[in-house]
Amino acid sequence: MTDKLIIFDTTLRDGEQSPGASMTKDEKLRIARQLERLRVDVIEAGFAASSNGDFEAVKAIADTIKDSTVCSLARANDRDIARAAEALRGSNRARIHTFIATSPLHMEKKLRMTPEQVLEQARQAVRFARNLCADIEFSPEDGYRSEVDFLCRVLETVIAEGATTINIPDTVGYAVPELYGHFIKTLRERIPNSDKAIWSVHCHNDLGMAVANSLAGVKIGGARQVECTINGLGERAGNCSLEEIVMAVKTRRDYFGLEVGIDTTQIVPASRMVSQTTGFVVQPNKAVVGANAFAHASGIHQDGVLKARDTYEIMRAEDVGWSANKIVLGKLSGRNAFKQRLQELGIEMESETDLNTAFAKFKELADRKAEIFDEDILALVSDESVTPEKEQYGLVSLSQHSETGERPHARVVFTIDGKEYVGEADGNGPVDASIKAIESHVKSGAELLLYSVNAITSGSTESQGEVTIRLQHGGRVVNGVGADPDIVVASAKAYLSALNKLHSKVDRVAAQG
Amino acid sequence: MTDKLIIFDTTLRDGEQSPGASMTKDEKLRIARQLERLRVDVIEAGFAASSNGDFEAVKAIADTIKDSTVCSLARANDRDIARAAEALRGSNRARIHTFIATSPLHMEKKLRMTPEQVLEQARQAVRFARNLCADIEFSPEDGYRSEVDFLCRVLETVIAEGATTINIPDTVGYAVPELYGHFIKTLRERIPNSDKAIWSVHCHNDLGMAVANSLAGVKIGGARQVECTINGLGERAGNCSLEEIVMAVKTRRDYFGLEVGIDTTQIVPASRMVSQTTGFVVQPNKAVVGANAFAHASGIHQDGVLKARDTYEIMRAEDVGWSANKIVLGKLSGRNAFKQRLQELGIEMESETDLNTAFAKFKELADRKAEIFDEDILALVSDESVTPEKEQYGLVSLSQHSETGERPHARVVFTIDGKEYVGEADGNGPVDASIKAIESHVKSGAELLLYSVNAITSGSTESQGEVTIRLQHGGRVVNGVGADPDIVVASAKAYLSALNKLHSKVDRVAAQG
Repeated sequence: MTDKLIIFDTTLRDGEQSPGASMTKDEKLRIARQLERLRVDVIEAGFAASSNGDFEAVKAIADTIKDSTVCSLARANDRDIARAAEALRGSNRARIHTFIATSPLHMEKKLRMTPEQVLEQARQAVRFARNLCADIEFSPEDGYRSEVDFLCRVLETVIAEGATTINIPDTVGYAVPELYGHFIKTLRERIPNSDKAIWSVHCHNDLGMAVANSLAGVKIGGARQVECTINGLGERAGNCSLEEIVMAVKTRRDYFGLEVGIDTTQIVPASRMVSQTTGFVVQPNKAVVGANAFAHASGIHQDGVLKARDTYEIMRAEDVGWSANKIVLGKLSGRNAFKQRLQELGIEMESETDLNTAFAKFKELADRKAEIFDEDILALVSDESVTPEKEQYGLVSLSQHSETGERPHARVVFTIDGKEYVGEADGNGPVDASIKAIESHVKSGAELLLYSVNAITSGSTESQGEVTIRLQHGGRVVNGVGADPDIVVASAKAYLSALNKLHSKVDRVAAQG
Repeated sequence: MTDKLIIFDTTLRDGEQSPGASMTKDEKLRIARQLERLRVDVIEAGFAASSNGDFEAVKAIADTIKDSTVCSLARANDRDIARAAEALRGSNRARIHTFIATSPLHMEKKLRMTPEQVLEQARQAVRFARNLCADIEFSPEDGYRSEVDFLCRVLETVIAEGATTINIPDTVGYAVPELYGHFIKTLRERIPNSDKAIWSVHCHNDLGMAVANSLAGVKIGGARQVECTINGLGERAGNCSLEEIVMAVKTRRDYFGLEVGIDTTQIVPASRMVSQTTGFVVQPNKAVVGANAFAHASGIHQDGVLKARDTYEIMRAEDVGWSANKIVLGKLSGRNAFKQRLQELGIEMESETDLNTAFAKFKELADRKAEIFDEDILALVSDESVTPEKEQYGLVSLSQHSETGERPHARVVFTIDGKEYVGEADGNGPVDASIKAIESHVKSGAELLLYSVNAITSGSTESQGEVTIRLQHGGRVVNGVGADPDIVVASAKAYLSALNKLHSKVDRVAAQG
């Protein structure tokens, strides 16, 4: 058996399915580029048949990414599979990942199909897919809660039809390591042609054991692919964390004896990019990528901790990409320096116009903030107004005032489809007043689900504030992100960005896995 | 062997040691009361000998808590142990937890002691402790990286001296489940008197496996106590999460066959209280207590998810204390209703004056915010100015203005030791200007490490903002928390609160474990 562990990242598919984590095509492309820099083996780019937006995102990633295999999810039917193949056409190395539920509960309640129907559909789907693509992954959804005899029949059938990777999802996060590891082992032992496929694990973190379950699937079960996401992003309690799996296998190489191809120094940049893009914060006590994960990465210098660092740390912060904030650019930096830094950060502007818009924003920021960090640049280009996608709403100017004992007041000038509007309102605070000023014209009816702010760089009260606003309307949930040294302005930008997304996104089919 | 799993919570000791998570005596007491409501078996209240502040906190908790065992940490020396015993004197059920490092690295680099000296000190410490207290826990620090023969000698010795619980820390989070479980099993098999003690596990989450490691210690190793913290709070990547351990054992009772005494409906309230008190956010995709952990607890109503809830959820949100925000009080609520709700939330005011101050703040808030939720009340009493502890700095009033193209300006009136000061300043944003206005007089020289804001209740833009500001000065790190519907005012409150803590806390000895 090979000693290479394949890292399959599904941040852009299972991660993005997390309510509130949906991303635009440009955001997904930017993250895909970072995943390629991270040297992820397989990037699951989306679920092409679920919506036109997802199709376009998968296609853009397949057309751009050269070093990683690019994969699209597809239900076990010809239309989904054909659509996935079409989206992947431009890829260097393409994979189609098709799935159908095999647990009694899911077959009965969700699919309303008999086991024989499910088996037949799985067979037909893999046969069809194999004619379009050489690299086929098959997942029995809710596999861990499936009946073993039936599951063996399904998996033997799809391997015979040419599935090259077999992935066993613990869809609901119910597994414990010992049982999950032996479940995979049993399947591999009982299925006669099991050696014709690479086995894969896909675990959810509902009981806090996704990483340990995945590793038991590898160690006990002999799986050689792990499906995971940056920051453990994913529905409910999320998926197995890429950073934890990778660092566990590296740190305990004595036990696992496996190689991973990941460039670990790209882990923290990837974590930050995903967190900034989705607005999903990483808690300080998160393993590997949390602000406190390494004593000295939190900016805290305690004598004892520093003296005894090797006594208490089993990994080195530098190895996973923690480094002090670097002042990369300032007021005097020119367009070329800015462009070069964007390239180093893996950000490609679609056109010269976008680059010029971003550079103008950069100069404007540099006038107000002496030191510009990488995080500021990332925030600046995350700002929807720099990479406009049918941008309906835009901020022109804002003025606000609050004083103890009086009602805060705001006046916001903004555009709707290019036309300027002026809104004024009072509110409980200046942010509330600004949002009410916008709503006085927009009347979106959206419900605010989340409002959060993070300073983009620490170490100074002059940091930019990055505001995330999550809105829900008509069953859809979107995140808007806005950054500005003025927290009220950042909030108004985030609100307008969320409105833009709310009005531009189309409905899509939901997949679980 | 018993089928009862003892839940030992160390949020107030190992959790609080996390840089930035330090708490005041009142905060610790409030959390201890919540842990008692949660029916935690043992509360590790602190490390009495580390500082006068910690001594007072342990004493206050020992004097107050009736149902849970109250424990203090102590290094393996007479002074520490006597101090712990003194702090615990008022307790119904007291435990002294003494520790000394046993790994070659820690003995040599940290203790600079030979193994024989360590063995002798452990023996003497437990003998001394046993004369002061019947319930003695012993931890060999960095136990999992210790040499087995030596560790067996140490543990056999301390059990012979009367240690009733033996705890094996994976201090650096290096373990994997299978190896850790067998390590505990080996120790229990090789130590002749091992059946005279209850065995305990204490795991850190550096590789994301603290929960699985702890459970392997229980399942394979036969441990019957798990040391854990609310939200997995703790140094670096934190400790094993109480909520994950408890829900794993309950949800997989078929596999573990163990009872836990925890009232799980108190889990989410405990999580919120710890998060609000420390300013350590819980990420949305955190198992059990994250905002997205249950599809419908995030306030998101998607058809598919709702229809298929039992198909995708293995736990019920209600069982862990998720419930819709309840409007508990409003403008017309009287002092008695307010007092009663405080009691229901487990908040006891130290005096009638404190109650009156809190009630006045409540009325002031109710004037500005129509619906008052439990979270608002918790934030209100978390506000340092309600339960003043040598409060040096206080906010009187604030006025600020920002306008696109101009430099934001703030004017802050505040008190230092009762005397009023007026500060004015410009800044990058209104928050920056307000903080600079305060600093124009205070000149603290503190470094800002973290600035974060969360809306206390969702579903409305009229929410209060809760701001956490973390400052560092002279090697010490403190959190200030402030809440107000006006985010700029909340920020100024948080800054003053942090300054109060910076000036009131005394240095303490650091313990690891």
